[in-house]
Amino acid sequence: MPYDYEKDGAAIYRQSFATIRAEADLGRFDVDEEQVVVRMIHAAGMVGLEEHVKLTPGAVAAARMALESGAPILCDARMVSEGVTRFRLPAENEVICTLHDPRVPEMAREMGNTRSAAALELWRPHLKGALVAIGNAPTALFHLLNMLEDPDCPRPAAIIGCPVGFVGARESKDALWADQPVPSIIVEGRLGGSAITVAAINAIASRKE
Amino acid sequence: MPYDYEKDGAAIYRQSFATIRAEADLGRFDVDEEQVVVRMIHAAGMVGLEEHVKLTPGAVAAARMALESGAPILCDARMVSEGVTRFRLPAENEVICTLHDPRVPEMAREMGNTRSAAALELWRPHLKGALVAIGNAPTALFHLLNMLEDPDCPRPAAIIGCPVGFVGARESKDALWADQPVPSIIVEGRLGGSAITVAAINAIASRKE
Repeated sequence: MPYDYEKDGAAIYRQSFATIRAEADLGRFDVDEEQVVVRMIHAAGMVGLEEHVKLTPGAVAAARMALESGAPILCDARMVSEGVTRFRLPAENEVICTLHDPRVPEMAREMGNTRSAAALELWRPHLKGALVAIGNAPTALFHLLNMLEDPDCPRPAAIIGCPVGFVGARESKDALWADQPVPSIIVEGRLGGSAITVAAINAIASRKE
Repeated sequence: MPYDYEKDGAAIYRQSFATIRAEADLGRFDVDEEQVVVRMIHAAGMVGLEEHVKLTPGAVAAARMALESGAPILCDARMVSEGVTRFRLPAENEVICTLHDPRVPEMAREMGNTRSAAALELWRPHLKGALVAIGNAPTALFHLLNMLEDPDCPRPAAIIGCPVGFVGARESKDALWADQPVPSIIVEGRLGGSAITVAAINAIASRKE
């Protein structure tokens, strides 16, 4: 007997988001934030993630305005850039990941840093007013913060800071939250990753559920 | 003052895996399984994930042997196929994701199913002996199980079944585990996703940590 299951993508989204809203503790978020956090929970398959999400007041609005005005999205990993749903973008925004640029391995050696961090040096021409999305590498987020210590470094419009893992993830996100060089969205602690980051981008790009 | 942080990729991996091995409950896994589960925990940033991982005895060996003999990896989503670390693959294995094939939207309409499920019909020529990795869509895993109910459908060597979410994820993985059409690796319940799936592939592809 073949399995019978829900095959309608729109119905799957509706049921998923209804379950999340029934189970998750979303009271402290405003309407814009709530839509972003619901989608992050959805990507993680994890009610309770909301406890770890922190957003600068106005961060969602700032990021959305940037996209509406045509800003690019700068991603630290291909799993992030590939996950962005292109038809949700309001201005056919460029989605840029420089990690596999052929110059990066040599730059990383010279810098004595990871390729993920070195790749951000290639963001400089795109950085002004961009939406930054770091969903993998703590070293990338630390390096971005160090770049932004230079007042001449162009400022992005907002930063989604969600690197994941056991070394530097918590510390780099704490540093972003303490510095607040621009409005930011983080997942505190070890949790994070490309799927959660992509979900935040996709929710910011369009209110459509 | 610029932030000081660990910038050596190899040291970051070493420290991460040491932390996971100190904290996670890995006693029930054999050596091959343990390496896979450690990498899955690493990708999720979540000690405790191991409680939800189930592996058919010999699944890791079967999947590894398939890759060593040149089998392709069939992925349900671009976030999975993009995450596979190519230099870890033992035989320059093909990594195939058919989701964005231009025929898929029309096939999905005809089938009355999601694009993720319809895309698997294009796997048939590649399916025999392949490593299947489903890290996103429950509908894809359900459709694969229905395809495999036909005894004439080619058998993959192993299935990594890790769709994520609130509608069908738990049910499709329970169905895979009950059916066991081929050796399988699953994350029970809602948890799963592309990063965890990619981590399993990368661990199977090479024992190198």
